[in-house]
Formats: sequence, C-alpha cells, structure tokens
Amino acid sequence: MKRLLSVLDGKEIRPLPIWLMRQAGRYLPEYREARAKAGSFWSMCMDPSAAAEVTLQPIRRFGFDAAILFSDILVVPFAMGCDVIFEDGPSLAVINDIRQLQCDETVWARHLAPVYETVKLVRRGLGVDIALLGFAGAPWTLATYMAEGRGSSDRRAAKLWGYRAPRSFRDFLDAVADCVAFHLIRQIEAGCDAVQIFDSWAGDLPARHFGEWVIAPTKRIVKQVRETYPQAKLIGFPRAATLSGYEAYACETGVDGISLDTTVPMEWAMKSLPANIAVQGNLDPIALLAGGEELRRATDAIVDAMRGRPLIFNLGHGVVPETPPEHVTELVEHVRAAR
Amino acid sequence: MKRLLSVLDGKEIRPLPIWLMRQAGRYLPEYREARAKAGSFWSMCMDPSAAAEVTLQPIRRFGFDAAILFSDILVVPFAMGCDVIFEDGPSLAVINDIRQLQCDETVWARHLAPVYETVKLVRRGLGVDIALLGFAGAPWTLATYMAEGRGSSDRRAAKLWGYRAPRSFRDFLDAVADCVAFHLIRQIEAGCDAVQIFDSWAGDLPARHFGEWVIAPTKRIVKQVRETYPQAKLIGFPRAATLSGYEAYACETGVDGISLDTTVPMEWAMKSLPANIAVQGNLDPIALLAGGEELRRATDAIVDAMRGRPLIFNLGHGVVPETPPEHVTELVEHVRAAR
Repeated sequence: MKRLLSVLDGKEIRPLPIWLMRQAGRYLPEYREARAKAGSFWSMCMDPSAAAEVTLQPIRRFGFDAAILFSDILVVPFAMGCDVIFEDGPSLAVINDIRQLQCDETVWARHLAPVYETVKLVRRGLGVDIALLGFAGAPWTLATYMAEGRGSSDRRAAKLWGYRAPRSFRDFLDAVADCVAFHLIRQIEAGCDAVQIFDSWAGDLPARHFGEWVIAPTKRIVKQVRETYPQAKLIGFPRAATLSGYEAYACETGVDGISLDTTVPMEWAMKSLPANIAVQGNLDPIALLAGGEELRRATDAIVDAMRGRPLIFNLGHGVVPETPPEHVTELVEHVRAAR
Repeated sequence: MKRLLSVLDGKEIRPLPIWLMRQAGRYLPEYREARAKAGSFWSMCMDPSAAAEVTLQPIRRFGFDAAILFSDILVVPFAMGCDVIFEDGPSLAVINDIRQLQCDETVWARHLAPVYETVKLVRRGLGVDIALLGFAGAPWTLATYMAEGRGSSDRRAAKLWGYRAPRSFRDFLDAVADCVAFHLIRQIEAGCDAVQIFDSWAGDLPARHFGEWVIAPTKRIVKQVRETYPQAKLIGFPRAATLSGYEAYACETGVDGISLDTTVPMEWAMKSLPANIAVQGNLDPIALLAGGEELRRATDAIVDAMRGRPLIFNLGHGVVPETPPEHVTELVEHVRAAR
C-alpha cells in the first residue's frame, strides 16, 4: 500500500511520508523552463502534457511520497461558467446571483476534461509506491474569488453577500460544493489516490460563519464523494482556522486527514484532534527558505511532538518561489532519517 | 472614574463602553477634509493640531467612551533613526543590524515630541468622562516593517533574521521594546489614561516564536511601563494569534486587557482567559460595513456571550474606509441599549 495512504488509514509510519504544498512550482529551474514554454500559468493548467510534466518534476528530483496534480482551484469557477484570466493574479467574472452559474454536469465535464487527462498522464509516469493527489478549492474560498472577481485582502464581497443575504449565499455555496464534489469524484475516477480540499481563506471568519460557510459545505462534499467512492481518502485544509475551528472541522466534516497551518502547535493537535484523523503539516515555508539549524530544529519539533500519531510531513503553506532546491533535498533527508 | 478604565480595573459595566479601532479615519467626511488640508498621512501624524482634530472628530460625532490618539505605529522606527515615507503604503530604511538603530532617549524624545503635544491638545478638548488611549506598535510587528523596509505579505525578512540569527534578532526586538516602552510612558505622562500595544502581525508565527518574539518583548514593555507608572493600564492586541497564543499572552505579559480579533469565539474567551483580564472586541468590520440584521445579531452575540465579564466593545480589526457613518451610529446605539 502507498505509504501516504496508510497514514490516511490511521497508521503511524516510519520513515514519515512527505510531500510539500506547491512542490511543483517556481522554485524549480525545470518548472520555470516548462512555464516559459507554456506561455501563461492558466494555459499550463489546461495543457495535460505540460501539467503532467511539472507534476512529475519534484517527484523525480526529490522522491516525494506523493505527487499533487498541477492545476488551480479556479478550474471549478471556470467549469461553472466564470471566465478566468491570470495577469498579476487571477481575474474572473463577478458572480452575485446563483442563476449566473452553470449547474450542468455535462458542461462541467467538458471544461474540466484536460484536468482528468492530466491525471491519466501523471499516473502512467508515476512509480507504484507514489500516491497521486487530486485537489479542489473549497466553496468558501472559491466564493471569495467569485464574488469579488479577483483575490481580495479582506474577503469583503463574499462576506457582504453572506451577511446581507444568508440564504442565497448558502445556496450559492451548495451549488459550488456540488461542482467541487463532481470534480473530486472525476479526479479519483481518473486515477487519483486521494484528494485535498483547500480552504485557503477559511481564516478570518467569525466562529458561526466558519461553521456555516466552511464546515457545512465541506461536509456536503465529503458525503457526495463517499456516495460514489465509499473508500475515498480526503484531506481538508481550512488554513488559518482557529484551534477550535480546526477541531470542529476534524470532528464534523468526515475528512480522513487535516492539514494544519504553521501557527498550530503540534502539542495541541496531539491532544485535541480525534485520534483517527491523520495530521499533515506544518513547517513554516520561511524556515525552509532560511535553511540551516532552524530548519532542522523546527522539523524535529514537529516529528517529536507527533510521535504515536499518523503524520504526513508537509509545510504549513506553499513552498515560496525563492526557496533553494537544496534546502528541500536536506529537508527530505532529515525527515526520512527521523525514527 | 472613566467607564473604560473601570472595565480595565476588572469591573463589568453597563451600558458597555465602546470605541472602534481606526475610528479616526477615512470613513468620516470630516477626516477626509482634514487629510486633504494636511497633505500626506505622515505629515498629519506629525502635526499636533491636525492630529488632535481628527482624534476628536469621532468623539464629537458618536460619543465614544475613548479617543485613540491619531498617530502611526511607525513613529517608533522613525524615532530610532529609520526614515519613513508613505506612498501607497509605508516605505522605510531597511534595518539588518542593531547598530543601525538610535538607542538614545534624547533622540527619541526629540522625534516623538509632536505626538506628546497632540496628547496634550486632545486632553484639553476631551470631556472628563472620555478616556484617552495612547498606543504603539509591538516590537515583532515593527520588526516586520523595519527588516523588510515596507509592509510584507509573509513577514519574510524579519522571520529570516530571527531564524538565521536568533540572538541578534532577540537583541533587536529588545532594543525596539525599550523605545516602545519609552514612547508609552511619555504618552501616559502627557495625559493618556491607558495605552494599547498593537501586534498586528502576530498571526503567522509558530508557537515557539510567538513566545519569543511576541510574548517576551511585550512582557518587557509592560514591566518597564509599570516601573515608572505602577498603576498604568495596558491593553494588548496580538492580532490573529492562535487561541493558545491569546491565552498565553493574557496570562504572561501582564496586560490589563486583551483585544481579540474577529475569529475568536467569545464563548472560548469566557471559558479560557483569566477572569481578571478585560476583553475587548471583536465585531467583524465587514459586519459593520454590511449593517442591518447581521450587524445587530453579531453585536448581540458578543454581548450575550460575555455576560459576567469585563468587556470593552470594539471591532476585531479597524473600521474600513467604505463604512457608512450611519452604521456606526446604529452600532453605538445598539451596544448602549444592551443590558
């Protein structure tokens, strides 16, 4: 069994499985080369052979335990009919009414076909012991982009919609959740071993709205995926949630694993998260950029705190583009040496 | 006794005292007028009569229980010898060695004199029942600007310094802490009733570094202020700390009150924070922007959760510039009506 999947099954494994969020990215010279050939970021996401190539690059270089599909969370809004353009960040059609959304599986499948083609290509190029992770953005995080038409520093447009018209906003999140579930199911069907749900902007919500806008739609997604694939493995990442938010998410959504951001004390995770939930995380990407003594110390602290529990070693956020690839090599060796 | 000070003394008071972070700001037409006259943001900070005028504006309009001095956290780096310019955000001299800093009280006093003059002017214009709050940025937050030379999306330069040269970085934070303590003492001397320490970027630190870079320097500041003014009242705001971070901060720094950001469940605060600590917060500024039913509901939820505890009603972050002033009027009336 693939090592990462054993951890998601609740087993403690040594050496620890390791992969890094944004491991396929600009810190790798081979990625920058592929990116220059492909033209735009978005065209690379939608070109199966280019996307498969950059998905495999970090596996060849570092031998990670999992490849994560090279794609973008905005493929779901794109499938639902929002045009997406990337120029200094994403720009997309503003949605303020659920009737603007395409809610038709045939349309979704047509728009998302290149992603599933990428999954098949990656699968062929990947060793049998390496897990392939698919992913999608969570409805709340996607809503912050869709309501604003771009990234937002304070998630204002989505919050205003939710505060002023709570029922219509919940219907909107449910519609997006249905497309997310569809997308995850199709990625599994195409060959992914597990999927991760990224709720990157879960972090600045009052507790009640975290429950309604983060936990409830995620629960809906997990339920739908399991209706099709009862054994499906899912990891959730409600980034920058409060500790009580992480705990509720781990207990209520039905995920197999939870990814923790850099601020979460692993001693707290050990004590407070359900014992059957695998934990993933949570090295500071800036410690990886820094390298040296602090990188080793911070890595050891995570490993030591989590003894006796299923752990997937990862960062608390994505690899930053300036990271020296040698630091990643050192990290992988250090994690693999931990007993 | 001023109502806000009674709460900082541990008393539960009705009607609740209320003020809002960034209550003197761009959402007020009278502020925009004063700002247009003053020229730049920084020149307004350094012009006592202009700064006093905008400090008093929200008191005249809304009758808040506290005025907070109009100034900026970057006056401390400025006093320590970093030139500061505001153009689409702050820009300042990059510090990467403690020897670049002025550590001379005479120099600090000369640079900061306009702030103390502002305090005196505000005091004269303020009703006897209204508290005057001084403030300063916390060393960690100031370090993020000083090490980077500007605002930073991931606090990279300060973290790299701290990760690669931990002793030199702690010495740097201590030097900044000394200037912060000096500045708070002089604001109290000039007439402030209480002071708030803003650690706006306390939020993305691993737990160990939160202890070393947020809690330890704040403790140093509180100690120094109390050596001069044993009865001084201090509020701390380690924005976006984890719940365990907030708890440690409340227990260890020695502050009288703790300001909580929007994500913190007040039920948690009620249960987990020491009973003698006053709590301030934590309405979502976007709920204030939204107005209407959700504004009233969210306000009631905070008030109801905190029954039996000293509470200063406030936002979880600053007023956003697009906020209709009528929403603020409604909020003040609603909070005052709560029994």
